[in-house]
Amino acid sequence: MNVQIIMGSSSDMPIAEKAQTILKEFGITYEVKIASAHRTPDVLKTIVENSTADVFIGIAGLSAALPGVIAAHTIKPVIGVPVSGKINLDAVLSIVQMPPGIPVGAVGLDRGENAALLAAEILAIHDKKLTKKLADYRKKMREKAMSK
Amino acid sequence: MNVQIIMGSSSDMPIAEKAQTILKEFGITYEVKIASAHRTPDVLKTIVENSTADVFIGIAGLSAALPGVIAAHTIKPVIGVPVSGKINLDAVLSIVQMPPGIPVGAVGLDRGENAALLAAEILAIHDKKLTKKLADYRKKMREKAMSK
Amino acid sequence: MNVQIIMGSSSDMPIAEKAQTILKEFGITYEVKIASAHRTPDVLKTIVENSTADVFIGIAGLSAALPGVIAAHTIKPVIGVPVSGKINLDAVLSIVQMPPGIPVGAVGLDRGENAALLAAEILAIHDKKLTKKLADYRKKMREKAMSK
Amino acid sequence: MNVQIIMGSSSDMPIAEKAQTILKEFGITYEVKIASAHRTPDVLKTIVENSTADVFIGIAGLSAALPGVIAAHTIKPVIGVPVSGKINLDAVLSIVQMPPGIPVGAVGLDRGENAALLAAEILAIHDKKLTKKLADYRKKMREKAMSK
Amino acid sequence: MNVQIIMGSSSDMPIAEKAQTILKEFGITYEVKIASAHRTPDVLKTIVENSTADVFIGIAGLSAALPGVIAAHTIKPVIGVPVSGKINLDAVLSIVQMPPGIPVGAVGLDRGENAALLAAEILAIHDKKLTKKLADYRKKMREKAMSK
Amino acid sequence: MNVQIIMGSSSDMPIAEKAQTILKEFGITYEVKIASAHRTPDVLKTIVENSTADVFIGIAGLSAALPGVIAAHTIKPVIGVPVSGKINLDAVLSIVQMPPGIPVGAVGLDRGENAALLAAEILAIHDKKLTKKLADYRKKMREKAMSK
Amino acid sequence: MNVQIIMGSSSDMPIAEKAQTILKEFGITYEVKIASAHRTPDVLKTIVENSTADVFIGIAGLSAALPGVIAAHTIKPVIGVPVSGKINLDAVLSIVQMPPGIPVGAVGLDRGENAALLAAEILAIHDKKLTKKLADYRKKMREKAMSK
Amino acid sequence: MNVQIIMGSSSDMPIAEKAQTILKEFGITYEVKIASAHRTPDVLKTIVENSTADVFIGIAGLSAALPGVIAAHTIKPVIGVPVSGKINLDAVLSIVQMPPGIPVGAVGLDRGENAALLAAEILAIHDKKLTKKLADYRKKMREKAMSK
Repeated sequence: MNVQIIMGSSSDMPIAEKAQTILKEFGITYEVKIASAHRTPDVLKTIVENSTADVFIGIAGLSAALPGVIAAHTIKPVIGVPVSGKINLDAVLSIVQMPPGIPVGAVGLDRGENAALLAAEILAIHDKKLTKKLADYRKKMREKAMSK
Repeated sequence: MNVQIIMGSSSDMPIAEKAQTILKEFGITYEVKIASAHRTPDVLKTIVENSTADVFIGIAGLSAALPGVIAAHTIKPVIGVPVSGKINLDAVLSIVQMPPGIPVGAVGLDRGENAALLAAEILAIHDKKLTKKLADYRKKMREKAMSK
Repeated sequence: MNVQIIMGSSSDMPIAEKAQTILKEFGITYEVKIASAHRTPDVLKTIVENSTADVFIGIAGLSAALPGVIAAHTIKPVIGVPVSGKINLDAVLSIVQMPPGIPVGAVGLDRGENAALLAAEILAIHDKKLTKKLADYRKKMREKAMSK
Repeated sequence: MNVQIIMGSSSDMPIAEKAQTILKEFGITYEVKIASAHRTPDVLKTIVENSTADVFIGIAGLSAALPGVIAAHTIKPVIGVPVSGKINLDAVLSIVQMPPGIPVGAVGLDRGENAALLAAEILAIHDKKLTKKLADYRKKMREKAMSK
Repeated sequence: MNVQIIMGSSSDMPIAEKAQTILKEFGITYEVKIASAHRTPDVLKTIVENSTADVFIGIAGLSAALPGVIAAHTIKPVIGVPVSGKINLDAVLSIVQMPPGIPVGAVGLDRGENAALLAAEILAIHDKKLTKKLADYRKKMREKAMSK
Repeated sequence: MNVQIIMGSSSDMPIAEKAQTILKEFGITYEVKIASAHRTPDVLKTIVENSTADVFIGIAGLSAALPGVIAAHTIKPVIGVPVSGKINLDAVLSIVQMPPGIPVGAVGLDRGENAALLAAEILAIHDKKLTKKLADYRKKMREKAMSK
Repeated sequence: MNVQIIMGSSSDMPIAEKAQTILKEFGITYEVKIASAHRTPDVLKTIVENSTADVFIGIAGLSAALPGVIAAHTIKPVIGVPVSGKINLDAVLSIVQMPPGIPVGAVGLDRGENAALLAAEILAIHDKKLTKKLADYRKKMREKAMSK
Repeated sequence: MNVQIIMGSSSDMPIAEKAQTILKEFGITYEVKIASAHRTPDVLKTIVENSTADVFIGIAGLSAALPGVIAAHTIKPVIGVPVSGKINLDAVLSIVQMPPGIPVGAVGLDRGENAALLAAEILAIHDKKLTKKLADYRKKMREKAMSK
């Protein structure tokens, strides 16, 4: 499996679905799980440690510890997606401001699709077919943008 | 032991010391450890699960996941202390904005002393001597404030 | 009585109800009152000073002075719940940023349920039955989260 | 006495001194006290209720409840001065965002001089000599500004 | 006339109406005008300079220069009311953060009623009947709050 | 004269000097004045109305009304420069968030040089020599950047 | 052509339309294009470099790089319009906080009309008819404001 | 070459050096260039398009367009590092809040070391030796943290 998506709560599903749509489109295998750094930390740890994924995507709102705790349990790259709520700066800053030594790459608020695209770019480094698909995706995006 | 202080980094020591000064003054037993939700999550889990403390104090800056992760591993009350840095809202919001089900009680930025006082108030519920000491502390604080 | 809930305005009721639901579930006795640090300071003082509660929960929005003023009148632990509005950072920072000597433990925006859970954790320190209930609550929460 | 200045902490003195300089210059009688909404609420209440002042100035930082609590105990006009610290938005929002019914007029961060000038303007409504002094002060300020 | 209310735009009317309701209730004479520091600066200046009001209330959103510019043209006390919009901190900070020498007393976001109450408190300094009305208003507010 | 620089306070001089350095370098005639929207509104109005400048640069901190008030008195383009202080968002938002009808073009915090460059770009629309100088300036900036 | 409007996304159209309404009213020729600094950087560069416009208006939300990148490719004046979203400070700060050497003049959030008015003011420096129209527009705006 | 580091200004060098220290330690080949999305957009484009790097690191402060513009020119993964300044939220939000389609993975303020570690994790997906080094690095970090 290529990508492990973990969301902190079932209410984050719409953001996870944006990621899934992209991953499917690129033929990237993935698995989606719900696990919380706060409610089910051991489940989270087990998922991360047993996952064969090359890339992790952590989706969470509020004091969004999830991506950082995923990163604590793996040396695979972790992408964090802050989920919007009543404050928004909370999730963004909680995910971006990781301490030295444990990196998380944060994408924008509710940007599940960008998390998946970043995962695709990472996986494409050693995958020419995926590189081709990414180049085609960009081209189509460009053409679509230009047709307006 | 009454209070387990855990700080995320050795640079948080000055804030932990504010807490220790208060705890010593009140004759509350405590232990101070450094453990990070990101760098040493298993150490952190072990400390929390093996601690006999009645109250936990978690001290951390940046995307301060520490108090929330302590709370994930215990049903003892957890007090979180955000540590100041370049943004400040990051640590405050990361600690305050916990999701439903896993509470953390956040005190102010760099307020190690208030974390200890809140711990003392919690412990004093069933400890008349400690209640007396808290009442005396307030009285002295009041007199000191009024003498100015 | 175990917990005294005080809200600053009748409009804070939905947040107080989240707390009440939890307290009822845990069999914790409580009382809910409306009193404002600004509109009825003497009523507030009288409630706090006459309360036999072990723990106070103060719920307020805007320049949310309520939890801090409760804390000024008691040495029992005080939990503050910021209520959401047009700015949100106002209530969060007003409750979190208490000065040295008078602690308040702040939970997240509109997190009445977490205030009640933190109160339960505090009361459980000397109450084995409550400890058991909290452990069961966590377990159920975990199972519910994992079943998704 | 015309103006009662109350500051929350002795560390707010430099801000209070800015106010005093202006009040002295205008021949307005005043008294300065230290009293905290959190550490000495009863002292604060007593000062406010016994004061013969026409205008109150409350100076405080952090979760600056002081001006609001002064306003809770008087129907005289209350001017609030937020004091700068590590966040700044905390004191500003705590003082500005008062609930309906209990007004506080907030001046800028550390603006003790403006609090005194606003007090002078309030007192000048029924005091022609003070009105003259205020007009002269403005004129001098204008000339000084224009001479640059 | 006692109070001159000036709002920056006709869209600020609901906030002005909150102020008018209070002023009417207290029998305070007032006049409401629309004038903008940006769109009609000369109209604004003329209104301020020709007004016989004892107190000014300026209501404005966005880069809310209105209260500050009113204060620039008078030595009567000026109360500023920030109006909510897409950012909110813009209007609050624009009104609060006045430079030294030209004071404005800011009330909370959309708090037209508090602006009027602060004006009433100012006018009541030399008006025993108004003082009585304010005391009664507080009493009723307290009773209403306590009846809940 | 081409550019009228107005700063709100003599303490804004270092920012004005950044603008002057650029204007001198481009041979653009300019005049620097100190006038405040709050302290000397009539002086400000007179300067703006009597100025023969094609472009105005307003430099101010805090509740930086200056650029907006300049714009209120002229239909020449106005560039606003927020000056840094204890909050920074205050000056930025006060200058950027102008209401519909009265535009100000805001440059970055303390960016006097960019205000001058934007003025130069505006003046260059009908001035080929200035266009040439701007192109050369960009070229040199590019070469300097590339030599590193 | 006088003004080149470029928006980063078709969703920014309502803001662009506010600008177009003004430009049409003033008889200023313009062209509207969609081009993104991120999705179609080369299209953007080509549009900017080939445009004969005297003034550019860049409209973008989120990490609104568009106006800054337009400015990178031209020495014509560039006006930036931040578009509102879930955070708002993101687009405002991304557009305002340009580095030294490459100026952008930012107008307020969603203020397409002000961008067009600023462009008109810039173009009017050497166009007496346009100056007349701007003066008339201000006059009408003033009369409309005063009739309320 | 594995990693292309691009910083927007020579003043960002200390942050780039944090990244270089890590990359050297891991034996990852890299190249450091200075190129600005605003001052030298064509140089930036040429560097990105001609680079054989597998991963890009873009380091920039203020309206930090650099990482986003790198991402616009490549389908390789791009890591963005916001650089601290007077506001800090500007660089963080400019880098994080990328629009759909063009992902950037943001690390924390001034976190050059974490950008390099994330790059190492990405490169390690197909490099067992590097995976080993990362595991060892984590282990050492953990041991160092535990020895305190």
